[in-house]
Amino acid sequence: MRQSSLPDLGIGLIGTGFMGRAHALAFQNARTTFDLPVNLKLHALADADAARAEHCARAWGFDHSHADWQQLISDPAVNLVAITTPNHLHCPMAMAALEAGKAVYCEKPLAVSLDQARAMHSAAVKAGVVTRVGYNYQHNPIIGLARNMIESGELGQIISFQGEFSEDFMGDPQSPWSWRCEQAHAGGALADLGSHLLAMARYLLGDIESVCADSQTVHAQRPAEGGSPQQRKIAVDDQTYALLRFANGARGTFGSSWLKHGYKNHLSFEIGGTRGTLSFDQERLNELRLYRAGAPGRDGFQQILAGPAQPGYAAFCPAPGHQLGYNELKTLEVRALIQALCGQTSEGPDFAEALEVERLATAIRVAAKEMRWVTVSEV
Amino acid sequence: MRQSSLPDLGIGLIGTGFMGRAHALAFQNARTTFDLPVNLKLHALADADAARAEHCARAWGFDHSHADWQQLISDPAVNLVAITTPNHLHCPMAMAALEAGKAVYCEKPLAVSLDQARAMHSAAVKAGVVTRVGYNYQHNPIIGLARNMIESGELGQIISFQGEFSEDFMGDPQSPWSWRCEQAHAGGALADLGSHLLAMARYLLGDIESVCADSQTVHAQRPAEGGSPQQRKIAVDDQTYALLRFANGARGTFGSSWLKHGYKNHLSFEIGGTRGTLSFDQERLNELRLYRAGAPGRDGFQQILAGPAQPGYAAFCPAPGHQLGYNELKTLEVRALIQALCGQTSEGPDFAEALEVERLATAIRVAAKEMRWVTVSEV
Amino acid sequence: MRQSSLPDLGIGLIGTGFMGRAHALAFQNARTTFDLPVNLKLHALADADAARAEHCARAWGFDHSHADWQQLISDPAVNLVAITTPNHLHCPMAMAALEAGKAVYCEKPLAVSLDQARAMHSAAVKAGVVTRVGYNYQHNPIIGLARNMIESGELGQIISFQGEFSEDFMGDPQSPWSWRCEQAHAGGALADLGSHLLAMARYLLGDIESVCADSQTVHAQRPAEGGSPQQRKIAVDDQTYALLRFANGARGTFGSSWLKHGYKNHLSFEIGGTRGTLSFDQERLNELRLYRAGAPGRDGFQQILAGPAQPGYAAFCPAPGHQLGYNELKTLEVRALIQALCGQTSEGPDFAEALEVERLATAIRVAAKEMRWVTVSEV
Amino acid sequence: MRQSSLPDLGIGLIGTGFMGRAHALAFQNARTTFDLPVNLKLHALADADAARAEHCARAWGFDHSHADWQQLISDPAVNLVAITTPNHLHCPMAMAALEAGKAVYCEKPLAVSLDQARAMHSAAVKAGVVTRVGYNYQHNPIIGLARNMIESGELGQIISFQGEFSEDFMGDPQSPWSWRCEQAHAGGALADLGSHLLAMARYLLGDIESVCADSQTVHAQRPAEGGSPQQRKIAVDDQTYALLRFANGARGTFGSSWLKHGYKNHLSFEIGGTRGTLSFDQERLNELRLYRAGAPGRDGFQQILAGPAQPGYAAFCPAPGHQLGYNELKTLEVRALIQALCGQTSEGPDFAEALEVERLATAIRVAAKEMRWVTVSEV
Repeated sequence: MRQSSLPDLGIGLIGTGFMGRAHALAFQNARTTFDLPVNLKLHALADADAARAEHCARAWGFDHSHADWQQLISDPAVNLVAITTPNHLHCPMAMAALEAGKAVYCEKPLAVSLDQARAMHSAAVKAGVVTRVGYNYQHNPIIGLARNMIESGELGQIISFQGEFSEDFMGDPQSPWSWRCEQAHAGGALADLGSHLLAMARYLLGDIESVCADSQTVHAQRPAEGGSPQQRKIAVDDQTYALLRFANGARGTFGSSWLKHGYKNHLSFEIGGTRGTLSFDQERLNELRLYRAGAPGRDGFQQILAGPAQPGYAAFCPAPGHQLGYNELKTLEVRALIQALCGQTSEGPDFAEALEVERLATAIRVAAKEMRWVTVSEV
Repeated sequence: MRQSSLPDLGIGLIGTGFMGRAHALAFQNARTTFDLPVNLKLHALADADAARAEHCARAWGFDHSHADWQQLISDPAVNLVAITTPNHLHCPMAMAALEAGKAVYCEKPLAVSLDQARAMHSAAVKAGVVTRVGYNYQHNPIIGLARNMIESGELGQIISFQGEFSEDFMGDPQSPWSWRCEQAHAGGALADLGSHLLAMARYLLGDIESVCADSQTVHAQRPAEGGSPQQRKIAVDDQTYALLRFANGARGTFGSSWLKHGYKNHLSFEIGGTRGTLSFDQERLNELRLYRAGAPGRDGFQQILAGPAQPGYAAFCPAPGHQLGYNELKTLEVRALIQALCGQTSEGPDFAEALEVERLATAIRVAAKEMRWVTVSEV
Repeated sequence: MRQSSLPDLGIGLIGTGFMGRAHALAFQNARTTFDLPVNLKLHALADADAARAEHCARAWGFDHSHADWQQLISDPAVNLVAITTPNHLHCPMAMAALEAGKAVYCEKPLAVSLDQARAMHSAAVKAGVVTRVGYNYQHNPIIGLARNMIESGELGQIISFQGEFSEDFMGDPQSPWSWRCEQAHAGGALADLGSHLLAMARYLLGDIESVCADSQTVHAQRPAEGGSPQQRKIAVDDQTYALLRFANGARGTFGSSWLKHGYKNHLSFEIGGTRGTLSFDQERLNELRLYRAGAPGRDGFQQILAGPAQPGYAAFCPAPGHQLGYNELKTLEVRALIQALCGQTSEGPDFAEALEVERLATAIRVAAKEMRWVTVSEV
Repeated sequence: MRQSSLPDLGIGLIGTGFMGRAHALAFQNARTTFDLPVNLKLHALADADAARAEHCARAWGFDHSHADWQQLISDPAVNLVAITTPNHLHCPMAMAALEAGKAVYCEKPLAVSLDQARAMHSAAVKAGVVTRVGYNYQHNPIIGLARNMIESGELGQIISFQGEFSEDFMGDPQSPWSWRCEQAHAGGALADLGSHLLAMARYLLGDIESVCADSQTVHAQRPAEGGSPQQRKIAVDDQTYALLRFANGARGTFGSSWLKHGYKNHLSFEIGGTRGTLSFDQERLNELRLYRAGAPGRDGFQQILAGPAQPGYAAFCPAPGHQLGYNELKTLEVRALIQALCGQTSEGPDFAEALEVERLATAIRVAAKEMRWVTVSEV
C-alpha cells in the first residue's frame, strides 16, 4: 500500500496503567476517527517493567518498548511525549521532554506542588513547544455547546456558578490508604477531583479572583494497603467546600468530596445567567440541561442530547443520542492536541493554564487553612 | 345534630392574601382530615378592608370579621391568633396577641430585624403560650422520613450538607421593585427564600456554629411598581452563598437566589453521611432520593415516593404515590400546632427556633459584609 | 354576618370512606378557593353506620346525617347527590337520585356492567339534570395545557398514543382477595385502573374506533381476607394490554396492571404528533414533558412545571412550581361540576361520556376473550 | 519486537460507511482493551470505490484494500469476513463468505426477506463456521446485569414486557425518501429500529409465541433525494405497534416508530416480574432502573450506574460511572465474536438467532396486514 504523504508524528507514551491504555486507545481512535493532518505513529511505549512494556506495546500497536523512559524521550523519532505515570513523576519526565524539545501531553494534575508547576511552565515557555494537560472533560462536545452558549451571550450576563465534583471511592472508612492520601503526591479530594472542576470553571467562565474555603479530613486514619492491620494517618482533605468570585462578576460555590456515597463521577455544575440557566453532570455526559427565560407557563428546563450539531460528535456517530463514552473524550483531547501541534488551534489547556489551575487549588488550600478570603493572584 | 364534647379552639386569622387563604384552607382541612383533640372553630377573620374581611369570612367559613385586628385579638373567644400579614406587621401583632395571652401562629420570617425577633421571643417566654412559625416545608411527611433516617443513624455520621433555595421571580431585571426589595421589610433572597433553607438545615442537622458568606445585588435598580418609568435603587441581596459549619461536625454550602432562571420553588439539599446520601427538591416534594452504601454494582440512588408509611400522609390518601400538594403541608403544620396546643408534642418551630433562624441569617449577612468567618453565637 | 345573596346549592354525600372524605374536602376547598356562583351548603351525609355518619358529618361540616341514603336523596334541600360507595351501589343510588330529579356526581367506574351504564345514561337523559363522573385526573391544570396543545395543533396531527396505568397494590401474590377481585363489582386492573386511562385518552384524543387486546390473570387464587387460610379463585384480569385505533387516525398501545412493582399511581402516557411529542406521569402530576420539533442540536424535551399560567392553578397558589396534590384535583373537579350546574360550562365527563368509557372497556374485554380486533361501536 | 505466539486471526471488512468505521474501531479497540486469545490482524478492507478503500485502509490500519469484495473473501489470510454494506448486499456477501468457509460477522438486519434469511442460516449450518449479527445493544454490560437478574429469578417470574424503539429521523414529512423507505431493502421503522428491540426482547425473555399488530404509513409520500421536487410513494411502515405473548407466559406491548419527535435512540423497555421491575433506555445506556419489592415506605426505583461489577465494563475503565459509549458496545460485540471463534462461548446472536428475529418481524407484518393474531412459528 502506498505510504501517506502526510508528515509523521511519532508518539512516545510513558505509563501502562489505566491512563496509559486510555492514551493508547485515544491515539488509535483519533487516527481512525478523524482526518488528521499528520501520519500519527505509535512509536514507543515505556514502562519500568520491561516485560509489561513489551507486552503492552504489542497489544496496543506501538513499534517499540522501553523500560527506561529517558530512552524513549531521547529517541529522535518521538515528537510528542505523553505522560501517564503517578503524579510525582510528571515533573521530572516533562522537564526532560521539554529539555529535549519534545511536545508534551501530560496527565492531570500537572504537578505535586505549585513550585513544580511553575518550573514546568517556565520550561515549556523556554522550549517553545506545544503542551497539553489531560483535563479531558472539557473536550466533551456538549461542553463545547455550553461554552458557546455562554460566550455568545445566550444566557445573558453570567452571575452564578454552583459546582461539585464528588465521588465515593474513599467513602468507606476502611478504604485503604494509597498514594492519593499523600499531599506529596497531590492527593486529597481537592487535588484529585476538585482540580477537574476548577479547570472546567475556568474553561467556561474564565478567571477566579478570590476564594474562601473549608477543608476537612473526616477519616483521620485508614488501614494500610494490602490488608495490613496497621493504620496510617491521613493528612489530605476528604472534602473541601469553597466560595468563588469570578473576574466576570459571577459568584458561587465549589465542592469536592471523595466520601459522597452514591456518586461515581459527579462532576456537576449549574451556571446562572441573567437570561438563562444551564446545568451538567458528568454521570450523564451526553446531556445538557438548559433553561431559557421565556413565556410563562410554556417554559421549562430542556434536556439537550449530544449530537452531530456539536463539534466533534459527528466523527464518532452521525446520529444524535447514540452517546459518547468517557474514552472518547480522550480521543477528542488527542485531536485538539494534534490540531495544536499543527498550528490549527491554540485551544486546550496547556501548561500555562494548568499552572493557573494549580494556583487556584493552592489558594483554596490557603483560604481553608487560614480561614480567610484569599486573592488567587497572591499565591 | 349533637354538639361535640371536645373543647373549643377559637381561631382568629389576620390577613386575607395568599397566605391568609392558605391558613383558612389548612384549618378547615385539618378539621376534616384529622381526628383533632379540639373542636376547631373558625371564629374571626381580620383585614383592614372591612368589606374584604366580611366577604372572605363568609367564603372561608369564619363566623365573624373585623377591620381592626386588635378587636380580633381582644375577643375572648379567640384562643389562637394566626398572622399572615406583611413582614413588618408580624411583630406588633404577635406582641399584642402574646400580651393578651393568646397562642400565636406567625408566618415566616418571624420579624424584620434580629432585635424584633429577640423581643418577640422574650414576650413569648413571658406569656408562656404556644407559638409556631410557618416554616411549613419541614412538615412534609417525606422530610419526616429524612429526619428519621438521619436521627436513627441510617446514613452514619452526617458529614456534609449542600443546600440551595432558588427561584426566578426576580430574574428579569424589569421585574419591578416591591416591599420584598426593602431591608426594612426583611426583603432580599436570603430573608425571603434562604431563611426557609436555614430552618430546614437546622431541622435536619441541628445547630450551625459558624459561617462565611458572599452576597450580591446583581440588579442595582428596578422599575417602580405599576409601570412607572421611575427606577428605584435596590439594596437587598439578589443572591447569597455561604459556607456552613454545623455543630455536629458537618460542613457544607448554602445558596439562595431569586434570579436563578428556571426554578420556581427549588428548595433543595443533599446530605451526606458516612453510610449514605439523601437529597430532596421541593419542586418534587413527594420524592426523596436515597443512596445507602451497599454491594458494588447493585447499588444506586433510590427514589422513594411519599406514602402512608410516612407519618401524616395517610390522612390525606391511603395509597402511596398519589402526591400531596403545597397546601397540604400547611394542613400538616396546623395539625402539629394543634397537637402542641394540646400538649401532645413539642415539635415544630416556635419563636425560640425562629429566633435562631434569624440569628443565623444575620450571621450570614455580617459574614458577607465583613468578608470573614462569623461565629453564629456572636451575633 | 350577612347572608350571601347567592342561591343555595345543597350537597348530599353518600359514603364516608377515602372517597367520601375526598369529596367532603373538595366541596369545602372549592368554596374557599374559588368564587363560586352558588352558596354551597354541605347539607347531609349518609352512611349505613348511623354513628359513623353522625361523627363524620360533624367532623366534615355537614348539617345532617343519615343511615338511610334514600332519606338523603328525598330531602328537598339536597340539590346534588354525590355517590362514593362501592361500585355495585352506584347504579341504584344514581337511579334513585335521577328519579328524584337531583343532579348526580358519581365516582368511577359508573357501573358494574355495560347494561347498568346504559340504563343510568338513559335515566340521566330523561331526568335532564347535570351528571358528572369522578375521572378526576383530567381536571389537572397541566392536563388542560396538554389538551390545549393538542387541540390548537401545536403538536401537528396526532399520530400515536402510548398509555399505561400501572400500580403494584396487588403485586404480592399474598395480597388478599377483595371485592376488587370480583367481575360483578367491576373489579380487575382494566376496570379499576385502566378505565381512568381510557377516559384520559378520550379526553385528549377523542373517540377510539377499534381495539385488540390481551388480558391475563397471573395469580389465579389469592388468600381470603382477614388472614384466613382459605384460598379464593380470581377471575378478573391482573394485567391487560391493548392496541388502539383512534377516530382521528392515531394508533397506539394501552396497558393496565396492578402487579407492576414500583408503581403507585403510574397513569402515564405519551402522545406523538407530526410536530412534537408530549408525555405525562401522574406520579409527577405537576410536570408535563414536551418536545417541539426545532433546530437540531438545540432541541430537547422540556419539563414544564405546573403554574398559574394554566387555568385553575392560580386559585391554589399564585406561584408556579409549588405543586398541587391529588386532593386538589378533586377540588377542581367540583368546581367544574358547579360550573356545569350553573350552565357556565358543558365540560367534564358526564354519564354519556362515562358510558363511552364503559363501552370501550367492554370492547377491550371482548377483544381479549375472542382474540380478535373489535369495533367499539359493535358492543 | 518479538512476534506474538498467538494464532493470527485475519479480518476482512467490507464497507467503509459509518458502520464500516465502527467495525474498524471495534476491532482495534478490542485488541487494545482485552487480552484476546488471538493475534487480531486488520488484513483487508473492501469498498467498491478503490481510492476510498485505499484511503480508509491506511487511515484505519488495514494492510490491504480491495475494490472487489470477492477478492477479499477469497484471500486465504482472511479468516473472518465482516459485512457492513447496505442490507440487500448482506445475503450475497455472506453466502460467498460461507461458501469459502469463512466466519461471518454481518450487520443487522440479516437479510431483506425471510427467504434470504433462511438460505443464509442453512448455508451457515452447512459451513459449520461461527456467525454473528450486529445486534450490538445486547452487549452492553448493564444489559448483561439485567439478563442475570432475570435469569437468576431476582425479579421473580417474568410477567410483562413493554418495549419501544422510537427515533425521529423521519419525523419531518419533508425528510426525503431513501433506500430505508423500500421494502426490498428491509426498510421501514419495524425493520430498521424494531428488529433491534425484538432481538433484545428475545435476548432477555426468550421466544415469542404469538403476536397481533398494527402498522401505519403516516406520510404516504416523501420528496425524492437531493432536493428534487418530485415526490416518491412510500410503502413501508412509519410506525408499528404490537401485542406480544412470550413462551414463558409474559405478555406485553411493542412499538417502533421513526416519527416520534424528541427521540434519537429510544430503545427502551420495562420488564415486570412477580418480585420486581426493571427498565432501560438506550438514550441513557449506562443506567438500569430497578425496583425490588421491599419494605413499604422505604422502597423505590433504584438507578444503577454501569460499573466494573458488570462483565466487560472494567476493561474500558476501572471506575464506575464513567460511562461507556455507543462505539464501545461494538467493541464488546467483537470481543464476544472472538471468544466464540475461539470456542470460549456460544453466546451472541448468530444466523440462527437472527433468522428468528426475522421470523418474528415477519409475523408482526402478517398480523398487521391481516389484522389477526399470528403464531410466530406459522411464518
